[in-house]
Amino acid sequence: MLYVHVPDQAERWLALFRAALPDIAVAGEADAVDDGQVEFVACWRPPEGLFARFPRLRAVFALGAGVDRLLGRPDLAPGVALIRLTDAGMARQMAEYVLHGLLRFQRRFDDYARQQQAGLWQPLPQRDASELRVTVLGLGAIGGQVARTLALLGYPVAGWSRSPREIDGVRCLHGSEALDGLLAETDALAMILPNTAETRGLIDARRLGLLPAGALVINAGRGEQLDLEALLDGLDGGRLGGAQLDVFETEPLPAGHRAWRQPHLHITPHVAAMTLPAPSAQQVAAALRAFVAGRPVAGMVDRVRAY
Amino acid sequence: MLYVHVPDQAERWLALFRAALPDIAVAGEADAVDDGQVEFVACWRPPEGLFARFPRLRAVFALGAGVDRLLGRPDLAPGVALIRLTDAGMARQMAEYVLHGLLRFQRRFDDYARQQQAGLWQPLPQRDASELRVTVLGLGAIGGQVARTLALLGYPVAGWSRSPREIDGVRCLHGSEALDGLLAETDALAMILPNTAETRGLIDARRLGLLPAGALVINAGRGEQLDLEALLDGLDGGRLGGAQLDVFETEPLPAGHRAWRQPHLHITPHVAAMTLPAPSAQQVAAALRAFVAGRPVAGMVDRVRAY
Repeated sequence: MLYVHVPDQAERWLALFRAALPDIAVAGEADAVDDGQVEFVACWRPPEGLFARFPRLRAVFALGAGVDRLLGRPDLAPGVALIRLTDAGMARQMAEYVLHGLLRFQRRFDDYARQQQAGLWQPLPQRDASELRVTVLGLGAIGGQVARTLALLGYPVAGWSRSPREIDGVRCLHGSEALDGLLAETDALAMILPNTAETRGLIDARRLGLLPAGALVINAGRGEQLDLEALLDGLDGGRLGGAQLDVFETEPLPAGHRAWRQPHLHITPHVAAMTLPAPSAQQVAAALRAFVAGRPVAGMVDRVRAY
Repeated sequence: MLYVHVPDQAERWLALFRAALPDIAVAGEADAVDDGQVEFVACWRPPEGLFARFPRLRAVFALGAGVDRLLGRPDLAPGVALIRLTDAGMARQMAEYVLHGLLRFQRRFDDYARQQQAGLWQPLPQRDASELRVTVLGLGAIGGQVARTLALLGYPVAGWSRSPREIDGVRCLHGSEALDGLLAETDALAMILPNTAETRGLIDARRLGLLPAGALVINAGRGEQLDLEALLDGLDGGRLGGAQLDVFETEPLPAGHRAWRQPHLHITPHVAAMTLPAPSAQQVAAALRAFVAGRPVAGMVDRVRAY
């Protein structure tokens, strides 16, 4: 049996899973469930202790790309497989999110908005896409597609990841030694990293200081990877050119936080890539079938590597 | 001899033309010029009467994509060829401009900016790219590339032009009969039309009324093609969802015009696609060589059709 825990649109998710897995029993919170029959759980923000209810649990399917909030849970036994979404429409959304931030910056839409407020008609110099060096941190299924999309639109794109990658049209670097030098050649930094021990605190005050003056920072990975206070200092002082942040160490970002009022920072409430029910249910169903058949499973999390 | 008239960066343009056409004399305003030797003019916003100075003038190269401001000039004799830029980096800029407007609308960045002002963390429902039907009016070298770029990013794209076109991945329609029906199926309208007798006033109050409620309008063609007052009424009343305008019937848009204060309208000062000196000079040089050799010339303007 597959037990489904989702905070929103539960009926829609159940219907999608039942349609995608007609040969497997699917139950939700509203159903009477024999916990001993549950072998699989598909979930988003599961309550603490949920997994401990199911003695025969074999695999948990996370309805998101990030699994950092599941990895340390005491109710998730070491022998239970953890499987995340690898794309399911999120890569395209992430590319849109990063692209919007880049275009707004490159084409000076913020400056034109300020001029509009003042009733001022004044063309401004702008950079060609070919002059804006973009670096994408994280080259998994999502970051890789972001890098490819930006390269296609004419930006010179570099990508950085933990292990070596190859992507057509993207200069790929890996390992922590390569990062500092790359940041010094980065006009726009797009962070799309998994949350691991290695990525937490990765872009700290020192590394922000390596970016050329006037650089743009976009973070759509996890808030813990970026020193928010150092970023705000850089924006306040004018050394950094702008930022677009979707993720924060504390979410929701507390009311009254000074970040809300930084005019060169654009805040979105963790919406850069939202889980789309239909493609996600299809992907979970495919992964579940592969898991049951003993075939390789896309999105299988290495619980040591942490993504 | 090629005479070059440009209001800005004259030295840079002259150096580029001299490098691209080493076998032809190139002169600018600051040079002593024997007007009788001038066979070619390359110009941007030429003063009235300029062309009348040159009795042996054979061709005028416009350093822009639009030539409507040149067509009616009494100093431009009927026998003189008029040649415009067909792309020279403008298509990519135009795609960026349209894409930014689309992404801002689709991903609700304006709503998030308002929430940020209020210190409010609140995810909002959004449309997937696949649900946003985009129509591009004008499918020349520039409009065609805009349509292709949007289709590549996952938007369902229709294109409309005066004469039939075929573009991979784009539903192409043509002729005035097809336009009304198409507008009724358009969530985002991108206008990239040449300014001709047929396109002036094309998107009037009636046609704006055909768009579905909440639609977006982007105009990067010419201001004369869109009824600005009707657009503003639609935005004020909430029937239209938003607009991004780069062009106006009167430019600069007069200070104090109510358009400046419409919160769902974003104004830019005719910068959607700026002429880039280096690729433009290359393109003019190639066109000039083709013209002299009697070969077909890209960008040759049909002065009856008007583009």
